Amino acid sequence: MKLIKNNLSEKLIINKYFKKLNFNKKGTFNFENDGAYLCLNNKNHKLAITTDTISENIDFFSNNAADSVAQKITTVNLSDIFAMGAIPHSYVMNLLLPDRIDNQWLINFSNKLNKIQQKYGFYLSGGDLSKSNKLIISSTFFGYINKNIEIFQNKINLNDDIWITGNIGQSKIGLDILHKKIITNINLKKYFINKYLYPTPCKLGPKVVQNISSMKDISDGLIGDLIDMLNNNFGAFININSIPLCSNTKKILKSKNSLKIEDLLNAGDDYELIIISRKKNRNKILNIAKNNKVKISRIGKIIRKKGIYFDSYLDINNIKKFDHFS
Amino acid sequence: MKLIKNNLSEKLIINKYFKKLNFNKKGTFNFENDGAYLCLNNKNHKLAITTDTISENIDFFSNNAADSVAQKITTVNLSDIFAMGAIPHSYVMNLLLPDRIDNQWLINFSNKLNKIQQKYGFYLSGGDLSKSNKLIISSTFFGYINKNIEIFQNKINLNDDIWITGNIGQSKIGLDILHKKIITNINLKKYFINKYLYPTPCKLGPKVVQNISSMKDISDGLIGDLIDMLNNNFGAFININSIPLCSNTKKILKSKNSLKIEDLLNAGDDYELIIISRKKNRNKILNIAKNNKVKISRIGKIIRKKGIYFDSYLDINNIKKFDHFS
Repeated sequence: MKLIKNNLSEKLIINKYFKKLNFNKKGTFNFENDGAYLCLNNKNHKLAITTDTISENIDFFSNNAADSVAQKITTVNLSDIFAMGAIPHSYVMNLLLPDRIDNQWLINFSNKLNKIQQKYGFYLSGGDLSKSNKLIISSTFFGYINKNIEIFQNKINLNDDIWITGNIGQSKIGLDILHKKIITNINLKKYFINKYLYPTPCKLGPKVVQNISSMKDISDGLIGDLIDMLNNNFGAFININSIPLCSNTKKILKSKNSLKIEDLLNAGDDYELIIISRKKNRNKILNIAKNNKVKISRIGKIIRKKGIYFDSYLDINNIKKFDHFS
Repeated sequence: MKLIKNNLSEKLIINKYFKKLNFNKKGTFNFENDGAYLCLNNKNHKLAITTDTISENIDFFSNNAADSVAQKITTVNLSDIFAMGAIPHSYVMNLLLPDRIDNQWLINFSNKLNKIQQKYGFYLSGGDLSKSNKLIISSTFFGYINKNIEIFQNKINLNDDIWITGNIGQSKIGLDILHKKIITNINLKKYFINKYLYPTPCKLGPKVVQNISSMKDISDGLIGDLIDMLNNNFGAFININSIPLCSNTKKILKSKNSLKIEDLLNAGDDYELIIISRKKNRNKILNIAKNNKVKISRIGKIIRKKGIYFDSYLDINNIKKFDHFS
């Protein structure tokens, strides 16, 4: 879609770097059309659609490597697709490119996209290129899911279990290290900065769709996203010791840095899933996670009293909401 | 999709201005999910997808009215959907908003979107909001079309007819008037500036799909887009007197302004359709256009000799390609 225009340099960019990403799918017309056709193979499937934008100086730094930017634009969207219970199908991408973008950047960017597409099995169906003073990327992702399944982000029941996949807070610690707010040794530095630069989505979503009440990915922080899910209908009781933290995060919390667990409860860019499910499905959820080699932690339950409550004292006023928009 | 976040102002923007645009469609979850489901009612349909970005100072001026910006972002995309032979279904929108955007702008912008959605029968299924120093809008549009139909932009045959819908060059004249390159009276000024600010897509595409070889919308200029369609396989012979111009455009060409017809052959933002079809379908095409009250002009035919040839002398070197990217 507008991937090819008259301008040779634009044509060149598309032919050289992006054409390979269509995986020779018929409906993409080899990017010679202004649009693409998308046909689901299974008539019992419907599409899941999500769209997200990442901007220089807001969602990444202008000196971040091209492969990190590729990882971020795909992860923010794949994370939503998985949270809807869907399997990635294809995507379109709108690239706003500043003059500094050169051949090497485009090679690294498109090669990383290629790897991620192969890993999760989806292809590029189109996009467009524009010039800009800042690097800005919007991308719309398509997933497929059985027609009869619908994952609401806020359809929950009293006493439902609250689960979290993976570990939280690592991306935030990486960002704090880059901002020199956290001082640590070279190994931990490398570990957390890598988590910040190369976040990955949790692919458990489509595996658990039949056994859950509600699901959402953590993009704006555990507490903030959980509040969205509660939708002012219910409350949550959280066992603070069940919040999943990796051993490296525990080291940082025990170090002389002033970082507290409160700071991690609304850290952005975790891209883990919050899963809310009936108590009776507890073993099923555990087994599915185990079979898919995904860490999952039951951190609490849904209660009638509105608000979020913890089993130990937390300096809750310290919890700042992460907000991509402000 | 990310239309709702923690931030009150973002929530407020969505609830106040954009929620009405989902036309209460179930799969949009009232914008309370990070994504949407899209299910085609007819199992014999597939999706047509196109995406486009418009940026301040490139595709519109920063002082252009909100309703003009709404008209442009929908027209660039609807034009592609129609050119693929599809009928508009829904869309997602990524808004990058500078600080100057206020309530009144959002009212005018969303009201215009509402009107356009009602006119063509499609709804907003999601989007996201970000801050930016410039107003930039990316939008991905979905249309539906019979599974068995495929419109290539460059699948043409020797001796095929070349058709153009509507009139060309009006948007370019409007832009030239704004740039004070063309001087004219107040009525013509108003007429052409309106054509530039409020371009409309040609909806004939889905009506003629069964009777054509190839189709493309004119977004980068008649000649440039025709060259893309010829794809270095064929040439085109054009009857210059058949190029459709409205009576006001003819007045400008006859006036003391130095504008020549050559200048209009690669003017951007026409959003008319180039239709290439078998000679045997000539009457069918004419009848379909007539029945749909769309002006259509047969401007030439496909020839074996590569290149574009005219039946009268044209200062072809004067033809500058319109390019959104450079």
